[in-house]
Amino acid sequence: MNPQLTEDGKLHHLLTLDGLPRAILTQILDTAESFMDVGEREVKKVPLLRGKSIFNLFFEPSTRTRTTFEIAAKRLSADVVNLNISTSSQSKGEAILDTVDNLSAMHADMFIVRHSQSGAAHFIARHVAPHISVVNAGDGRHAHPTQGLLDMFTIRRYKGAFHNLRVAIVGDVLHSRVARSQIHALTTLGVPEVRVIGPKTLLPVGIEQMGVKVFHTMEAGLKGCDVVIMLRLQNERMKSARLPSAQEYFKFFGLTSEKLALAKPDAIVMHPGPMNRGVEIDSAVADGPQSVILPQVTYGIAVRMAVMALLAGN
Amino acid sequence: MNPQLTEDGKLHHLLTLDGLPRAILTQILDTAESFMDVGEREVKKVPLLRGKSIFNLFFEPSTRTRTTFEIAAKRLSADVVNLNISTSSQSKGEAILDTVDNLSAMHADMFIVRHSQSGAAHFIARHVAPHISVVNAGDGRHAHPTQGLLDMFTIRRYKGAFHNLRVAIVGDVLHSRVARSQIHALTTLGVPEVRVIGPKTLLPVGIEQMGVKVFHTMEAGLKGCDVVIMLRLQNERMKSARLPSAQEYFKFFGLTSEKLALAKPDAIVMHPGPMNRGVEIDSAVADGPQSVILPQVTYGIAVRMAVMALLAGN
Amino acid sequence: MNPQLTEDGKLHHLLTLDGLPRAILTQILDTAESFMDVGEREVKKVPLLRGKSIFNLFFEPSTRTRTTFEIAAKRLSADVVNLNISTSSQSKGEAILDTVDNLSAMHADMFIVRHSQSGAAHFIARHVAPHISVVNAGDGRHAHPTQGLLDMFTIRRYKGAFHNLRVAIVGDVLHSRVARSQIHALTTLGVPEVRVIGPKTLLPVGIEQMGVKVFHTMEAGLKGCDVVIMLRLQNERMKSARLPSAQEYFKFFGLTSEKLALAKPDAIVMHPGPMNRGVEIDSAVADGPQSVILPQVTYGIAVRMAVMALLAGN
Repeated sequence: MNPQLTEDGKLHHLLTLDGLPRAILTQILDTAESFMDVGEREVKKVPLLRGKSIFNLFFEPSTRTRTTFEIAAKRLSADVVNLNISTSSQSKGEAILDTVDNLSAMHADMFIVRHSQSGAAHFIARHVAPHISVVNAGDGRHAHPTQGLLDMFTIRRYKGAFHNLRVAIVGDVLHSRVARSQIHALTTLGVPEVRVIGPKTLLPVGIEQMGVKVFHTMEAGLKGCDVVIMLRLQNERMKSARLPSAQEYFKFFGLTSEKLALAKPDAIVMHPGPMNRGVEIDSAVADGPQSVILPQVTYGIAVRMAVMALLAGN
Repeated sequence: MNPQLTEDGKLHHLLTLDGLPRAILTQILDTAESFMDVGEREVKKVPLLRGKSIFNLFFEPSTRTRTTFEIAAKRLSADVVNLNISTSSQSKGEAILDTVDNLSAMHADMFIVRHSQSGAAHFIARHVAPHISVVNAGDGRHAHPTQGLLDMFTIRRYKGAFHNLRVAIVGDVLHSRVARSQIHALTTLGVPEVRVIGPKTLLPVGIEQMGVKVFHTMEAGLKGCDVVIMLRLQNERMKSARLPSAQEYFKFFGLTSEKLALAKPDAIVMHPGPMNRGVEIDSAVADGPQSVILPQVTYGIAVRMAVMALLAGN
Repeated sequence: MNPQLTEDGKLHHLLTLDGLPRAILTQILDTAESFMDVGEREVKKVPLLRGKSIFNLFFEPSTRTRTTFEIAAKRLSADVVNLNISTSSQSKGEAILDTVDNLSAMHADMFIVRHSQSGAAHFIARHVAPHISVVNAGDGRHAHPTQGLLDMFTIRRYKGAFHNLRVAIVGDVLHSRVARSQIHALTTLGVPEVRVIGPKTLLPVGIEQMGVKVFHTMEAGLKGCDVVIMLRLQNERMKSARLPSAQEYFKFFGLTSEKLALAKPDAIVMHPGPMNRGVEIDSAVADGPQSVILPQVTYGIAVRMAVMALLAGN
């Protein structure tokens, strides 16, 4: 049994893209397509979730991610409450569950959960009452499924289909929940060749078992790609022993116009943001004609609206 | 003159349960009863306070309590603004009043006030314009009237009436604003026997004058009780000279299944939350069949909606 | 070309009052007048900005100012999202623009920007997509145009016109964005005599070139004034070498009843808040019959509603 699905196979929680059937992914992308025009309207609002109570339960602070969910929920007319909970006072799982039980008792409909520990959203989903849905907004190194979904939405919008693509994911795959979600989605949706590119210290051992090809140079890895996904290099990595320096990282793995020229001429460039310009990506590429980084953000709202609407409807 | 009532005896502020007539308490509980179904609806919203401006004025941080008021206000369709004001920059009463005057000048309708100093909500209520209502969301050791009311609502729901009950309040009564509000409400509503149980260092001198019986052991105090209300033991107390250790406290005053067996077989167990499991209450009891701790939270939303609706209507 | 106006001369951003035509200022004040009754209604709400997404983008914390914009936006039925962004992680302009680009991609309609650096709101306005409006909610020492506008609204309400007034601005003009906005507005609206009063260390060199008369004593400066605007003395100034002590400042430049008697008998007293009672203003004056400090706050909501409504409509 997939803990994310109801008995009759409908989406009930969104915790990870790992194991989600292709039909569900496609349903989310199609629903997001139907929300694309809401953002363009004079009145950017639909009444679908009116009177629902959605809690942004952020154990790890992230103004940016919280904002995307808050905007998506408000455009669905839901009531949103933001809770920033310091993990110092919540170190024990028991305390997290007491918090969740409390909010559930207030007739919550949905929890959007962000936590620095992998598995936190699953832990909460296992525990909540049957009518409550949980959306993982990023848990440790594990998953960030709405980011993965908006990336698929972006690829489908620009490339039309998945079955004929070569997609490269570049950078710190080891610490990236985003990369994990992307790989699961790309393989499920039928992308025949998914590549990861990075220094050995930033690629997980055995990553090939996820169905990806491993490259250690941009020259080899970017060749012939349709989609280039850059990952954010966390500041703390740059100071660690895993990397010589930001400058040197940029020299080898930063995406410049020259390196991008190795990919197909119509390749698109993606990044989950926020970017470290001059570290993993050059500004000329980030702001260049092949970049679809800002459209990703726009699509992200439609995708989050779709996820929330489907969960509330199922 | 009761500063909480209008000239014709209607509720205008909710500052303390001390001195509130039984008819007012009953009116709040009855109104809360009428809001119980809102939380169960598809659209959890009524338009009663549409266009009203409610300010959560929290001089002492409390995500949990703020959330209950925010949800209650949103379900009444009010506009809610959250203000967390550090007391360091607000140490003088003058600065508090300037803040309150400013918000009042923005056509505020209601202030929900939380402050670490006893009397803060009264101080503000004395000062605001006549059309503005103040709700005390906890002031120092003094009062937490909406907590007291939701406890009464819980007792009435489970026990049907107050006139035939024996109720015990266990733990750190000395520092507890919750306990004070409970005692006032229980005696006003006609509970014939209210008990407090705790070590001498955590019971106020002269507490008997509030109309309660004092016990220093669980064995004697819980005997024959219909309702057992556990109080939270603040972490700072555990480190102070007033207590030997959390373990020893649990041994003598922590509520276990064994100790609970001393009360009536159908006794209910309450706690205002958040719980210190293993300190004042054992998990087997907190999550056991006699616990009504989560229903308390559910009722708390209905009770806060009732208080806000009555204040705005009077 | 004025960067605040559209090609056909309509208000598109509100960044500074410097260079805004008198007709625009008057249009804002007239529009604010039309919103004055909204705050008095049973339902304090108009549907003008329903479904618009307004972001309070505060790089410098200010609960007070954020609240005024939040309330104004909610009374216009907009969706408001608050973002407090620490400038430590945003020191580079590039990072600010990436944040702004991201929020723009979420189909933002308006940014309310507060920043400790002068020019931040202009910088953002130059960069955003054509359909997005920027309101400066205070940038460094530069400008605070909605404060300037609400001050003009207050003066017009109490004095009826501008062409026959003598207005004094008293205190720390050097560090005050509020004073700059007031001077621009007063001269544009035709006030024949604008005075600044303060010690030499707190008046900018060459301030006369803004069209004001400079005074270094209250005795000379307040004589015959119709309007006395007190500025807040920032705490950090009091500790600096620029000032001997708060007590001595109060002796020379604090507004007392005695000093106020030097102005016209019907002079009004204004202050942008929050006040340092006993430093720049005596409580007897702040709370006295000539003070219009709280009406300023009330008018501030109507003025901010007017600015938002005009920007969204143009």
